Amino acid sequence: MSRAPLLLTPGPLSTAEETRGAMQRDWGSRDPEFVACISRVCLALAEMVSEEGYVAVPLQGSGTFAVEAMIGTFVPPQGRLLVLVNGAYGHRMVALARRMGRAVDAMVWSESEPVDASDVDAALASDPSITHVAVVYCETTTGLLNPIEAVAKTVQSHGRRLLIDAMSALGALPLRASDVAFDAVAGSANKCLEGVPGLAFVVARREALERCEGNCHSVSLDLYDQAERLGRDGQFRFTPPTHVLAALDRALAQHADEGGVAGRGRRYADNCKVLTDGLKGLGLRTLLPAERQAPIIVTVLSPADPAWDFGAVYAALTERGYSIYPGKLTERETFRVGCIGHVFPSDMAGFISALGEVLDAQGVHQREPKNE
Amino acid sequence: MSRAPLLLTPGPLSTAEETRGAMQRDWGSRDPEFVACISRVCLALAEMVSEEGYVAVPLQGSGTFAVEAMIGTFVPPQGRLLVLVNGAYGHRMVALARRMGRAVDAMVWSESEPVDASDVDAALASDPSITHVAVVYCETTTGLLNPIEAVAKTVQSHGRRLLIDAMSALGALPLRASDVAFDAVAGSANKCLEGVPGLAFVVARREALERCEGNCHSVSLDLYDQAERLGRDGQFRFTPPTHVLAALDRALAQHADEGGVAGRGRRYADNCKVLTDGLKGLGLRTLLPAERQAPIIVTVLSPADPAWDFGAVYAALTERGYSIYPGKLTERETFRVGCIGHVFPSDMAGFISALGEVLDAQGVHQREPKNE
Repeated sequence: MSRAPLLLTPGPLSTAEETRGAMQRDWGSRDPEFVACISRVCLALAEMVSEEGYVAVPLQGSGTFAVEAMIGTFVPPQGRLLVLVNGAYGHRMVALARRMGRAVDAMVWSESEPVDASDVDAALASDPSITHVAVVYCETTTGLLNPIEAVAKTVQSHGRRLLIDAMSALGALPLRASDVAFDAVAGSANKCLEGVPGLAFVVARREALERCEGNCHSVSLDLYDQAERLGRDGQFRFTPPTHVLAALDRALAQHADEGGVAGRGRRYADNCKVLTDGLKGLGLRTLLPAERQAPIIVTVLSPADPAWDFGAVYAALTERGYSIYPGKLTERETFRVGCIGHVFPSDMAGFISALGEVLDAQGVHQREPKNE
Repeated sequence: MSRAPLLLTPGPLSTAEETRGAMQRDWGSRDPEFVACISRVCLALAEMVSEEGYVAVPLQGSGTFAVEAMIGTFVPPQGRLLVLVNGAYGHRMVALARRMGRAVDAMVWSESEPVDASDVDAALASDPSITHVAVVYCETTTGLLNPIEAVAKTVQSHGRRLLIDAMSALGALPLRASDVAFDAVAGSANKCLEGVPGLAFVVARREALERCEGNCHSVSLDLYDQAERLGRDGQFRFTPPTHVLAALDRALAQHADEGGVAGRGRRYADNCKVLTDGLKGLGLRTLLPAERQAPIIVTVLSPADPAWDFGAVYAALTERGYSIYPGKLTERETFRVGCIGHVFPSDMAGFISALGEVLDAQGVHQREPKNE
């Protein structure tokens, strides 16, 4: 097995050796020591969004499992969901809701435009049958930040309920229930919390969750049932990914040591600054202006030079120890570089040097994008 | 963190140090090396049941996620499922099917009786609307073996389709498509294959799976979509639990080295023999006669002595390095001891010694069960 490259992606991402070290023993899922570990993790996750009134419900699987579970548990079968879409993860929420048979509408913006709360205001005013609104905090498709606070105010002013996909934001970007009114937010162990993949979670307003019995289309994904069991004896209903949970417990301790959301966000912002300045220095163009760019993942417009070959650049960068990500835009040729995970500004500087070498070596001289 | 006790449970169970060692690096989910790992795992799982015509579809989550995915993907919305029930996992399949809105009937036997193929024959003859039959191979509730081959012959003779929950059997008990006709079988990384928890799978008859597009009630649990993506570029649709998958890859290599299903089954049978002989030597009674007892998990009837206190015995055994499992029977007081995982006959002998010491120390002299 070759040396692992640094993962500059939106996840799976690079984790600390200490975090992976937590996976070096086996736990019984009913052992008091492991039950205490679950409890510690849930408390840390809930406190990340609120001091009281919120409960964290961990769930086996990827982030999408948690987003599906959130929609299925919180939007009752007779409800109607409005999804605000400006990227792949917004579209995915529409697909998830549609498959489970929920009434769902989509409002769609361009992939480089934040959603607009005033449009949402108009939509909610004109359709009183909408019970819930769902929005992505940071669209991993592009790295675009949505104005979550303005959206939440609008939704609340109409007496509707907000569900947030904060997958690539939670743990590094601010999200406090006191500033943003929401019923539930979905997150993952393996993004800004820097755990390993295999576990996701929803942090829910307790009063809202308590009214969700029997809503969910799926037993496995039912967050009401999962929360009920956790509340009763502290255990998952079905075998938890014990090693993954132990790793998250260790990762959350590091998150606290780094200064919580503020500290983690600061490091990622530093990573992002070194990255975007460096890309500019190499003559490359990024998709988003700085004010819309979350310090999570940066979308870079592919150079116009005919020598540009993403596959070749990807391979050469991997060879040098950096794993980047393909783009996910339908309209333009792009690639993506993540700022998250156990990576530091010095890593970003190293990446920029490597990318410069690769572009030079492969004869990519014309670095402005072609399709403008 | 205290030393990890040996897990004598139906899972999570004890794994080899080498298996956990595979989780000491991070993988990008799109890296060719990781994609090759997925492919190796899928091939090994499919070949476990058939040389051709079957495909393995891994899924994030616990075994229940895979069982729900199997029912949702294979039983079409207009189908009707008959579940053969003689334990908690049979009842669970009924609950899973009911929640997703499938028409479902249950045939129920006692928890210490195998299902009876002749009853199934009569049920299928009298109800032509039943399209699928679901059965548990080894009921983890008790350790009871069901006559899977006889059931499969009956189901096939009526032209219906069989779905098998082989969670605690696959990898140690024989299941070949040439002997047992089935459309899909659900298994877990963390039972007889001795991986870590967080990943489950379904091995499906390719021709049957190809007809399942759009059946599933859940996007996350849709095995057709998951198989389609894996077939296209070798990747999961949603972030895979990379470390867990790498551990399974390593565990499967050890499974092959041990002589595959036959070799693994032999060790577990040896474990079970040392365990059941030892329990008998201590004066304890097991629930099942030898011919119905799978070498997976043994249900022990709680002693009648008033000094018997499961919590105290559990704690004292944990102290001595052995973690056992509570019973799951509604009718009788029991506890359970697993024979599976990275454990050997010498471990079972050590456990028997420890249990004897604990029973003596706690003054449990009357060891016959009370409620007979």
